[in-house]
Amino acid sequence: MTEFRGIYPALITPMTPEGDFNEDAFRQLMEYNISSGAHGFWVAGGAGESVLLEDEENTRIANVAAHQADGRARIIMHVGAVTTERAARMAENAAKAGVDAICAVPPFFYRPGPDEIAEHYRVVGAAAALPLFIYNLPGATGIEITLELAEKIREQVPQLSGLKHSAPAFANTRHFASMGLSCLIGSAALLLPALTIGASGCVDGPLSLSPDVWVNIWTAYHGGDIKFAEAEQRRAAELYTIFNRAGYIASMKALISEKLGIDCGDPRPPQRPLTSEERAFVIRTAAKLGMMEIASKDGR
Amino acid sequence: MTEFRGIYPALITPMTPEGDFNEDAFRQLMEYNISSGAHGFWVAGGAGESVLLEDEENTRIANVAAHQADGRARIIMHVGAVTTERAARMAENAAKAGVDAICAVPPFFYRPGPDEIAEHYRVVGAAAALPLFIYNLPGATGIEITLELAEKIREQVPQLSGLKHSAPAFANTRHFASMGLSCLIGSAALLLPALTIGASGCVDGPLSLSPDVWVNIWTAYHGGDIKFAEAEQRRAAELYTIFNRAGYIASMKALISEKLGIDCGDPRPPQRPLTSEERAFVIRTAAKLGMMEIASKDGR
Amino acid sequence: MTEFRGIYPALITPMTPEGDFNEDAFRQLMEYNISSGAHGFWVAGGAGESVLLEDEENTRIANVAAHQADGRARIIMHVGAVTTERAARMAENAAKAGVDAICAVPPFFYRPGPDEIAEHYRVVGAAAALPLFIYNLPGATGIEITLELAEKIREQVPQLSGLKHSAPAFANTRHFASMGLSCLIGSAALLLPALTIGASGCVDGPLSLSPDVWVNIWTAYHGGDIKFAEAEQRRAAELYTIFNRAGYIASMKALISEKLGIDCGDPRPPQRPLTSEERAFVIRTAAKLGMMEIASKDGR
Amino acid sequence: MTEFRGIYPALITPMTPEGDFNEDAFRQLMEYNISSGAHGFWVAGGAGESVLLEDEENTRIANVAAHQADGRARIIMHVGAVTTERAARMAENAAKAGVDAICAVPPFFYRPGPDEIAEHYRVVGAAAALPLFIYNLPGATGIEITLELAEKIREQVPQLSGLKHSAPAFANTRHFASMGLSCLIGSAALLLPALTIGASGCVDGPLSLSPDVWVNIWTAYHGGDIKFAEAEQRRAAELYTIFNRAGYIASMKALISEKLGIDCGDPRPPQRPLTSEERAFVIRTAAKLGMMEIASKDGR
Repeated sequence: MTEFRGIYPALITPMTPEGDFNEDAFRQLMEYNISSGAHGFWVAGGAGESVLLEDEENTRIANVAAHQADGRARIIMHVGAVTTERAARMAENAAKAGVDAICAVPPFFYRPGPDEIAEHYRVVGAAAALPLFIYNLPGATGIEITLELAEKIREQVPQLSGLKHSAPAFANTRHFASMGLSCLIGSAALLLPALTIGASGCVDGPLSLSPDVWVNIWTAYHGGDIKFAEAEQRRAAELYTIFNRAGYIASMKALISEKLGIDCGDPRPPQRPLTSEERAFVIRTAAKLGMMEIASKDGR
Repeated sequence: MTEFRGIYPALITPMTPEGDFNEDAFRQLMEYNISSGAHGFWVAGGAGESVLLEDEENTRIANVAAHQADGRARIIMHVGAVTTERAARMAENAAKAGVDAICAVPPFFYRPGPDEIAEHYRVVGAAAALPLFIYNLPGATGIEITLELAEKIREQVPQLSGLKHSAPAFANTRHFASMGLSCLIGSAALLLPALTIGASGCVDGPLSLSPDVWVNIWTAYHGGDIKFAEAEQRRAAELYTIFNRAGYIASMKALISEKLGIDCGDPRPPQRPLTSEERAFVIRTAAKLGMMEIASKDGR
Repeated sequence: MTEFRGIYPALITPMTPEGDFNEDAFRQLMEYNISSGAHGFWVAGGAGESVLLEDEENTRIANVAAHQADGRARIIMHVGAVTTERAARMAENAAKAGVDAICAVPPFFYRPGPDEIAEHYRVVGAAAALPLFIYNLPGATGIEITLELAEKIREQVPQLSGLKHSAPAFANTRHFASMGLSCLIGSAALLLPALTIGASGCVDGPLSLSPDVWVNIWTAYHGGDIKFAEAEQRRAAELYTIFNRAGYIASMKALISEKLGIDCGDPRPPQRPLTSEERAFVIRTAAKLGMMEIASKDGR
Repeated sequence: MTEFRGIYPALITPMTPEGDFNEDAFRQLMEYNISSGAHGFWVAGGAGESVLLEDEENTRIANVAAHQADGRARIIMHVGAVTTERAARMAENAAKAGVDAICAVPPFFYRPGPDEIAEHYRVVGAAAALPLFIYNLPGATGIEITLELAEKIREQVPQLSGLKHSAPAFANTRHFASMGLSCLIGSAALLLPALTIGASGCVDGPLSLSPDVWVNIWTAYHGGDIKFAEAEQRRAAELYTIFNRAGYIASMKALISEKLGIDCGDPRPPQRPLTSEERAFVIRTAAKLGMMEIASKDGR
């Protein structure tokens, strides 16, 4: 029923040496992902330094993403913010930019109650008049989208289309799906198991390094080749060992810079760049997993 | 590599009206499960009122379970306790009774440190000289078996064979498996997804009501019929709606009493029995799922 | 040793009906508090809608606060933000405005590690070249300033002066004080007990409604009249029953609007305004506690 | 209103080299504490290895405690257990032994709901027909006695007299007191601050090492000598540095063994004994605080 299905890399936001949005690198990264079979993108979300961006940057990124995709891949644009007004303004701008959907973390820091969260989403969704995805990321926001809260939002927000599910309650994947929500599993390590209980696809940062791996899982699963899907999912999961040793966004930026030969810069402080040792480690590890060479789209 | 694979219902401990162990009902329940294709049992664990039982009851149950199984199914006997001495004594008795393996929650209440937990398991494992399973149940014990803690225990406990994984960190299933541990997923709702990332099987209470459902998932998955596995897993998950309305052990006792026509009694206080309304609800719900009629082993 | 001692109301940020900063109301609120004996202010912090304000608003508020205080009370200006750059820029602007100290929550949402947090505070502190207070508010930020983390920050941040302690670990008050930090207890209900274990004072929103109550506690404690201090602390604690029924910032705004006869507006959405029933309840409750009449400075 | 006020050391349970209850050492420890001014005792609770004891040991200890106190100090006997039946049986035996009150942690491990917890306490309280104290120890039990839960229990349990409050929500001390409950603060480091907000006294293990320190706090506070109370409370708090380095019960046993010249043995495994280095450290630290010499009752 939903049109937002499949492999949705969560894009990093490449930066120039001065720390500004690097449009050129961003377009190249999108292009590589589209050519590798990605179905769409999650833009300016967790991996994309979301709330570290200025609102104007967010809007500019929405424009670039929609322009570059040009109908070849779907854009889900993150517009979450601490106030309803800011989120709604970014939502409106994203819609004008031509994205396909918006997404947002619940309002964080002050942790409002369920009614206030639902009303927040209602206003933000209405501002864009586009499908809306909730970003369920309690590790960052302190707010878990429980089944009860999802139900309340669904009742009050006509735009609600689905959610990115990045919370420990893995089994809720099925229940969200049963509610008619498109549940995009938020962990690159869990695409295959999530598919078996109703997930619509996967959104995560690591997908953007080597989308073919997750496209393989998706295709093999739907084609009934569960053994190949499992093998690729195993390879996908091993990539995570990188992030236990070095920072997530910094590692992703280093890997993509190296793989695509474009300088994606460092994460914004307080997040620190990788040391040269860490950089060598992450590149070496990803290379062992066969993710540092550009694969052709039908590379199986 | 491990021999403890497949469908392991976690048995309730049926009680007489006086609140004592009901051996007869227990044997009938085992027999029904064996005839339905269960590969083994998790005995006197969470669903079996574990730490609510007297140590002597635990040993008696071990004897009955081993006798009734008689080599037709494997017995993993729970011997967890707050002191090492009590757990080791029950482990020794379980070994004498002829069970196939033992399992234990980590020592709870006082929440000792990692070294003390590993030493506890070493002594308990040595007392039985049998394969040992950790019961990772942080919701009850307050102690999560992380990958680091599992590694420490593995280094010091030669009997360690695997674990029942009933913690939110679902993705660790794969990592436990990679460590060479047999990871039995602790949720009836997650057997199929867990199999795709390396689980060896499933241990949970609901399995004992209708083992054929989970045997179907197991068989279909291994036979490559992923669609049937998914359909059965969906049915399995729906059973959980029961436990949101009424107590878990009380519901399981009511369902099994009704299905097998044997009185399994109530859980030990402070857990309360079901009201008659709750009883009617759980039976009606399970019946709708087709789990209240005794299926033949090859009932697909 | 520290100069930041005593009663520091955490000011709300009054808003106009259009939702902009209401400078006039803010000045009147400060003036009432100064005349009631407040020793200083915590500005644009939790009660002041902190991270809901635009950076430019933050700087404007710093200017107004410093101007209005005019040396009669000390200004601790909140400059916390999700990026080091934004926090440092606000810190620099606050210093130019003439505030006496700055304060900041740790960088939240992405929850960086201890080294990154310390480096963040170092850069922010250096940008202002003023005494720096940490805002320990794990309920909003997800990061607790433990004793170990405080020690690490102290080693690397020469400007560090103290902290507002709004975390459950009440006993740490003493340990922070032993480290030479000025520990301002972050709960209006705990000033007196905190003083007995080394706190330097109190920062909290409710103080601004009726600073005389907390000035009484402070004066009575230091004058040895522990019974009067206890009685006033009891009265202070009862004010909290308000916030269990209605939102904290909305209630504070309604109470101050009513008491001072100035319209402080509503909190920024997604926080909702009070209903008229809630408004009547909070005013009635505060009135019963004798906090709705303007007391003279020596009103005991 | 309550008769259970003042300084209530939580006694360790001394063990023989064989690991059995050491009655003689226990009597000597009680005698030393009574002669030092303790108002009563918390027996077989957290510091006393509570749930690690066999039920028969619990009853024997109740008998010895009541006999040794002989009306000179009040005995609050811990009877908490995982089942209502076991707790009620121990409660009945404690009453027969002649203790003055009973106390119990809520039923743990299975974490029953509020109604079941209240019913549990009702049955246990009725079995003893004595004043009943709740032991609020969420760090061990996973269940916090919130104000709502306390209210529910109060409504259903006529024997309820108060609680030992060992949870992070320090400010609840006042609210428990307002409900008419005797709130014994559960931390030796917080007696004085707790008294200023309505606590009736203190229960904690460290008190038994040197009850004179806490008796001094109690007496000075009630005599209006807040400065001396603070100085003694500071000394009391410093004792805690010991428990960050070495196990709590093992340290207490080592210190009391050394101070009173009686062998109190080691904690039951899985808790480990101190190393000889740790033993030297804890004794040296306590000695520096002046707690290793036996003070006379009026030793100020």
